[in-house]
Amino acid sequence: MTALAPVLDRLDQNLDQSLDRLFDLLRIKSISTDPEFAAECRKAADWLVEDLKSIGFEASVRPTPGHPMVVAHHDGPAGSPHILFYGHYDVQPVDPLELWENDPFDPALKEIEPGRKIITGRGSSDDKGQLMLFVEACRAWKAVHGSLPCRITILFEGEEESGSPSLRPFLEANAAELKADFSLVCDTDMWNEETPSICTSLRGLVGEEITVKAANRDLHSGMYGGPAANPIRILANLLADIHDEQGRVTIPGFYDGVEETPSQILQGWEALGETAESFLGPIGLSIPAGEKGRPVLELLWARPTAEFNGITGGYTGKGFKTVIAAEASAKISFRLVHAQDPKKIRAAFRQFAAERVPADCSIDFHEHGGSPAIQLSYDSPFLTGAKDALTEEWGKQAVMIGGGGSIPIVGDFRSYLGMESLLVGFALPDDRIHSPNEKYDLKSFHKGQRSWARILDALTS
Amino acid sequence: MTALAPVLDRLDQNLDQSLDRLFDLLRIKSISTDPEFAAECRKAADWLVEDLKSIGFEASVRPTPGHPMVVAHHDGPAGSPHILFYGHYDVQPVDPLELWENDPFDPALKEIEPGRKIITGRGSSDDKGQLMLFVEACRAWKAVHGSLPCRITILFEGEEESGSPSLRPFLEANAAELKADFSLVCDTDMWNEETPSICTSLRGLVGEEITVKAANRDLHSGMYGGPAANPIRILANLLADIHDEQGRVTIPGFYDGVEETPSQILQGWEALGETAESFLGPIGLSIPAGEKGRPVLELLWARPTAEFNGITGGYTGKGFKTVIAAEASAKISFRLVHAQDPKKIRAAFRQFAAERVPADCSIDFHEHGGSPAIQLSYDSPFLTGAKDALTEEWGKQAVMIGGGGSIPIVGDFRSYLGMESLLVGFALPDDRIHSPNEKYDLKSFHKGQRSWARILDALTS
Repeated sequence: MTALAPVLDRLDQNLDQSLDRLFDLLRIKSISTDPEFAAECRKAADWLVEDLKSIGFEASVRPTPGHPMVVAHHDGPAGSPHILFYGHYDVQPVDPLELWENDPFDPALKEIEPGRKIITGRGSSDDKGQLMLFVEACRAWKAVHGSLPCRITILFEGEEESGSPSLRPFLEANAAELKADFSLVCDTDMWNEETPSICTSLRGLVGEEITVKAANRDLHSGMYGGPAANPIRILANLLADIHDEQGRVTIPGFYDGVEETPSQILQGWEALGETAESFLGPIGLSIPAGEKGRPVLELLWARPTAEFNGITGGYTGKGFKTVIAAEASAKISFRLVHAQDPKKIRAAFRQFAAERVPADCSIDFHEHGGSPAIQLSYDSPFLTGAKDALTEEWGKQAVMIGGGGSIPIVGDFRSYLGMESLLVGFALPDDRIHSPNEKYDLKSFHKGQRSWARILDALTS
Repeated sequence: MTALAPVLDRLDQNLDQSLDRLFDLLRIKSISTDPEFAAECRKAADWLVEDLKSIGFEASVRPTPGHPMVVAHHDGPAGSPHILFYGHYDVQPVDPLELWENDPFDPALKEIEPGRKIITGRGSSDDKGQLMLFVEACRAWKAVHGSLPCRITILFEGEEESGSPSLRPFLEANAAELKADFSLVCDTDMWNEETPSICTSLRGLVGEEITVKAANRDLHSGMYGGPAANPIRILANLLADIHDEQGRVTIPGFYDGVEETPSQILQGWEALGETAESFLGPIGLSIPAGEKGRPVLELLWARPTAEFNGITGGYTGKGFKTVIAAEASAKISFRLVHAQDPKKIRAAFRQFAAERVPADCSIDFHEHGGSPAIQLSYDSPFLTGAKDALTEEWGKQAVMIGGGGSIPIVGDFRSYLGMESLLVGFALPDDRIHSPNEKYDLKSFHKGQRSWARILDALTS
């Protein structure tokens, strides 16, 4: 801890200055989705480049067909790991403006309850506040030690809030430059305001659309009902067969590559206190609908699913029509975990479905994307180190959580750069990102800087 | 046969005159759905009243809020049955006019192959040709005998092709006047051009719409997939449960009131030569989808069904959306036979469905009509008499067929007048009713008149 302690001290002493810098960045209206703000996006990129240069990074604004990227490099000691840090400088639009209590681009510090201060403004949490934590940690380290503890590359994107159209081509074109040992991705939440978290898994996805075709035209159900095949019935039977009574998916081979979650991880999740009631209550439900006997957080973070996202067939307007449709279709997605293979899952599903269509009917398949799950090894030294660092800073055991959905950048880093990511963030569920009155807790801003300093120390010592 | 023979002779001798009369009626453009032709509808009603008066009927045009009815009465011998004959004088529109080979309202006689002549024109088959058969039979009988063999009431409607909006109120308001021992309904087909038929059953219908509701809003399938109930899955399971592997409906009590078809009736249907291939081939199918082990005509005419007429839920547009819908719904209809009770079927289905919805979800039901099946007793003397008469006229065993759908007038006669109907018609499947180039075979027109004379004789002797 000899290297770390003075860095933490410096972060404490310079909190006001770091706030000033964040406020400067927050005043730039870098709304990526609205072309009217293109110059503001460029201005934010320039601001970041200048700031990173002031720390000693070799930083540049890198053009794309859309808003530019910021790429910065800083050497580290020989033998130290190479880390890529990712964040984004663009922000969401601010409409409806009248719902904001403060000007979204005139940030302020507000005390909302005794001892709890927040930073107001668009981007304060998503993602300018979060990315500046890491920059401040680097700045303090450099100021104290004249160097950084490892080789660091920084990538700040300017199109995250508008679909990242330039990201993949940019990763592909600059893979050699950007490839590091692992990446740190910073736009995630804490579990709650006291409990830091690391997201160690994200579910993958296979999307399929199927169309069952029966007669060569719509039929009158009086004239044909009975003898004629009904594609809605075939489709309903097919969908109903996908789950057994225990809520498990019955497609052969579906669970290949799925591992049981280690009991210590399950215990950690149990300790979070999320119950079926607390999770489902807000959406008006109470009974977990997935595999029976598993807690909701495991269902969400560590178990695969088959979901029916849409279905249509026959007459769906007002009133009634005694029709037997010629076809019926459904959109189906599978959430994947661990080592489930999207290609194998798709193939197994297609065979499963085709086997359930009568010989005189047919089924068409249409692919809607596929990506494998992300799963960090629970015993990775990076993970252990980051977890201990967070636990030390917050005085409360850091939890390893999962994500039920995907975060595209993490998959892209793996696909294009062959690199795993550690997802650590200090946002809170009540930060109102994408909404009026976005905020970031001052505590997140302060202890987040200290957390990144601790993580840098842990990962490199 | 003493009373009948001279009537048949007279019909033969007066065929040309009867054709002239039909042509007069066909020239009237009584398109009921187009208000521009309201005067033509009135003209057709007037023409029929005058023609019926000329035979000795007490006939009148009876106003309704829409197009008028024609009602006519003629006495019969004491103790003879009272018969209500129903037809309709309105016709379908003629668009697209350019597809007609002959002017739809300038009827003609055309020889389409050696020995086969057809009457061309809108309404030639549906239903002016068919209704005039009976009128001509009455005319000949009256001319020969100076009387009719039984008491006859005639009801000609002018709105059959536009949804019969005035029919039920008219039946209700005039029930005492219209009620007879049974009715003859004339707008059905022969089995084929050689084989006369009587339709002895029509399936009933129960229509239901169900909506399964789960979460209180649409959910992201990444954030909630697994723990959260998916209404499409619940709906698919529910629908899949409705049929067992034998194609039978599993709803408790569903088959209450369903009788096995007598083997002689089944044999009669088998003799018609309709196979799975011949019935399903034209619609691109080959495997009967209903209860296993039963022939297609039995499935269609004598077995109840559950059909799914429409289904919708979640995202059904282009592309993909990883949504878990808040609700999903389906339109379901049950075709009923024999003594199945629509109310009991609806209640049993609702209980069956509700039992399959998890306790934290809900299901809404919306009723879309219900009517019982029509089933003539196979040993009714009217039926036997009519069947023998048709067999004698056509030289080929008349077949007792069923109808897979409903013919509203038959249900209405039962509901409003407490009266069963005998459905006999001489249209052919290639008459192109409702389409350009509607026609009626001259053979249908000639032998149809003779058939009605024979039926009148059989029913009253």
